[in-house]
Amino acid sequence: MSRMLPGVLTLTTDFGYRDHYVGAMKGVVASLAPGVQVFDITHDVPSFDIAEGAFAIAQAWRSYPDATVHVVVVDPGVGSSRAPIAAAAGRHFFVAPDNGVLSQVLESVGTSSIRRVETRHGLRAISRTFHGRDLFAPVAARLAAGLKFEDVGPSMAEPVRLPPVAVAAGIGAVLHVDRFGNIVTSFRQEDLAAGAGLEIGGRIVGSRADSYADAPEGELFLILGSSGYVEISLNRGSAAASLRARAGAHVALARSRSGQGV
Amino acid sequence: MSRMLPGVLTLTTDFGYRDHYVGAMKGVVASLAPGVQVFDITHDVPSFDIAEGAFAIAQAWRSYPDATVHVVVVDPGVGSSRAPIAAAAGRHFFVAPDNGVLSQVLESVGTSSIRRVETRHGLRAISRTFHGRDLFAPVAARLAAGLKFEDVGPSMAEPVRLPPVAVAAGIGAVLHVDRFGNIVTSFRQEDLAAGAGLEIGGRIVGSRADSYADAPEGELFLILGSSGYVEISLNRGSAAASLRARAGAHVALARSRSGQGV
Amino acid sequence: MSRMLPGVLTLTTDFGYRDHYVGAMKGVVASLAPGVQVFDITHDVPSFDIAEGAFAIAQAWRSYPDATVHVVVVDPGVGSSRAPIAAAAGRHFFVAPDNGVLSQVLESVGTSSIRRVETRHGLRAISRTFHGRDLFAPVAARLAAGLKFEDVGPSMAEPVRLPPVAVAAGIGAVLHVDRFGNIVTSFRQEDLAAGAGLEIGGRIVGSRADSYADAPEGELFLILGSSGYVEISLNRGSAAASLRARAGAHVALARSRSGQGV
Repeated sequence: MSRMLPGVLTLTTDFGYRDHYVGAMKGVVASLAPGVQVFDITHDVPSFDIAEGAFAIAQAWRSYPDATVHVVVVDPGVGSSRAPIAAAAGRHFFVAPDNGVLSQVLESVGTSSIRRVETRHGLRAISRTFHGRDLFAPVAARLAAGLKFEDVGPSMAEPVRLPPVAVAAGIGAVLHVDRFGNIVTSFRQEDLAAGAGLEIGGRIVGSRADSYADAPEGELFLILGSSGYVEISLNRGSAAASLRARAGAHVALARSRSGQGV
Repeated sequence: MSRMLPGVLTLTTDFGYRDHYVGAMKGVVASLAPGVQVFDITHDVPSFDIAEGAFAIAQAWRSYPDATVHVVVVDPGVGSSRAPIAAAAGRHFFVAPDNGVLSQVLESVGTSSIRRVETRHGLRAISRTFHGRDLFAPVAARLAAGLKFEDVGPSMAEPVRLPPVAVAAGIGAVLHVDRFGNIVTSFRQEDLAAGAGLEIGGRIVGSRADSYADAPEGELFLILGSSGYVEISLNRGSAAASLRARAGAHVALARSRSGQGV
Repeated sequence: MSRMLPGVLTLTTDFGYRDHYVGAMKGVVASLAPGVQVFDITHDVPSFDIAEGAFAIAQAWRSYPDATVHVVVVDPGVGSSRAPIAAAAGRHFFVAPDNGVLSQVLESVGTSSIRRVETRHGLRAISRTFHGRDLFAPVAARLAAGLKFEDVGPSMAEPVRLPPVAVAAGIGAVLHVDRFGNIVTSFRQEDLAAGAGLEIGGRIVGSRADSYADAPEGELFLILGSSGYVEISLNRGSAAASLRARAGAHVALARSRSGQGV
């Protein structure tokens, strides 16, 4: 990979936008990897919600160029014994706490290599409450500036994994509710073949549309989202508000339209 | 325009900050136009609110250098037959859906040239739900990296336009309510000459101030805002909350202070 | 300081994320200092809250490289006679209104040099309502692009200062409540030595933890935060919600655990 182009680094956290935390992380990157471009995926992952963090980075990383370094910090265990890890996967690099937040990324690539990050790559003083600034940003910056992946730390067998999100026996879940109220389910298009739609909270949604604008206003419908997953949507309205759906909620393949409820 | 300086690209959307959508768009830019600087205008345009998106970009673009490429995506019609367009206006470039979101920019410049964006400039697979990532960001990145404007696609006669915001016969509207509760009206300073103030929601505001700090606390007043429009403000308070005013609300020239109401 | 590396500039404001204000400031920087990297500390400082702005920049600036230019705009007095100032402190530069928003930064460095910013460094037309765009961003951009600090304007004796935040006679205050509900107090670790904990709103918090994860769920505890201050926290919960604490609230050293209230 050419080093003539500026390195690229992304940040995904649950630190929010009110505090100085993300600004401090960027300062560390600017200090240790001058000229590297820093992009935000989101900092509004719900606090401590590892599954939502895993979803966000899994959705975004493939849009970035090869060799991008992605920092993912949703870290309720900061300062405890959970390890800091780095992963080389799909020609990209990832730095995160070992708590499952890279699960969806690692699921989606064939092979990956995981290393435990040595604290010598962090700042001289590493606090027990802000590894984003003191450890994850520094090692990511050093990777973006040319540190070899093998020098990050020793190889690790298997990082912590969240339960896989794939649909099994017609049962899945809500992975994410977006700003517009679209409900991203764990169903792939092919998972729908055998059924008449999706059942969520006692309601069956059977209509399908190819674009938001195709659907009649006020009617719930299924659509293949940009996420690669089937989404439940409402044209110019919030499907999530209408169905009171939240991330983690149960979604099932509906065998017939006249099934339970409606 | 010199290509020695890094290109500059801005993003204005209604995608919000919670999701990965903006982060994915930036990844596309980083992939297709390495080194180009990317700046956010805002991603908190109210969902589907084309007029608010038109206001935001119209307010910000002139602060950027010549040759900046501005991507504006407020796009309720994504995946339908609405065209993707690019505009060359005032020595800047704009990329957006053809739904009127560029209206205020195009109104404010003498002449402009509009082209329909050919989908060959997008990603290889273009989803029906996320043209921000799959089409608008790619063509904008290519323009920032040197694609000639004439090569974007065929010339178009006239893009969709929103009704003009100019005041007519003493009648205008609220264009925007900002974070501080300042009410940006469509009145220019000279539109006020004939009247005693502005009437909104049955209240007349007649006091004027040159700066926020000049005005007595707790009193509504008119001020020439940084927007170039007359704003209704309240020193250290929210005029919008006080008047329950929202974008789109009716504003009229008050002929006398003892007019309707108050 | 070498000029081979791109300059770095940060922004801290109370302008929020909804409006185009921050986007316009960045455009000015891109126009006057092409290639300079711009980073956000936060734009969600509570409106007009100078003390919160002072806290945010004081927390973040040291993470940035030498010669970084920090723009801090929390400016209720915009357009009045309050001066625009620039400071050289700790090998960094700061540009802000003279209202105390740099107090904590200046407190934390040995010596600093303050200059009154001459308006000739601003845009040709300077509005009375948006000095962030028209004056502070331009002079900061010029500094990042090589303007000498001495050329900013005449030397100033003493800028406006907020009351110091240091604990006196066992009495301190809440400096900030973060996104997670952690309560950042003005107590340093050593201020706790003489007492049995901290008293806030009639409650005494005496437990201590070294990391969030060390503490039992549901119990309030004291922790040395990444801020360098003692924080009151609740593992996986909001201490601020539990204690109804807000920035500015009174915090006192508790002489004994069986003290007032509980």
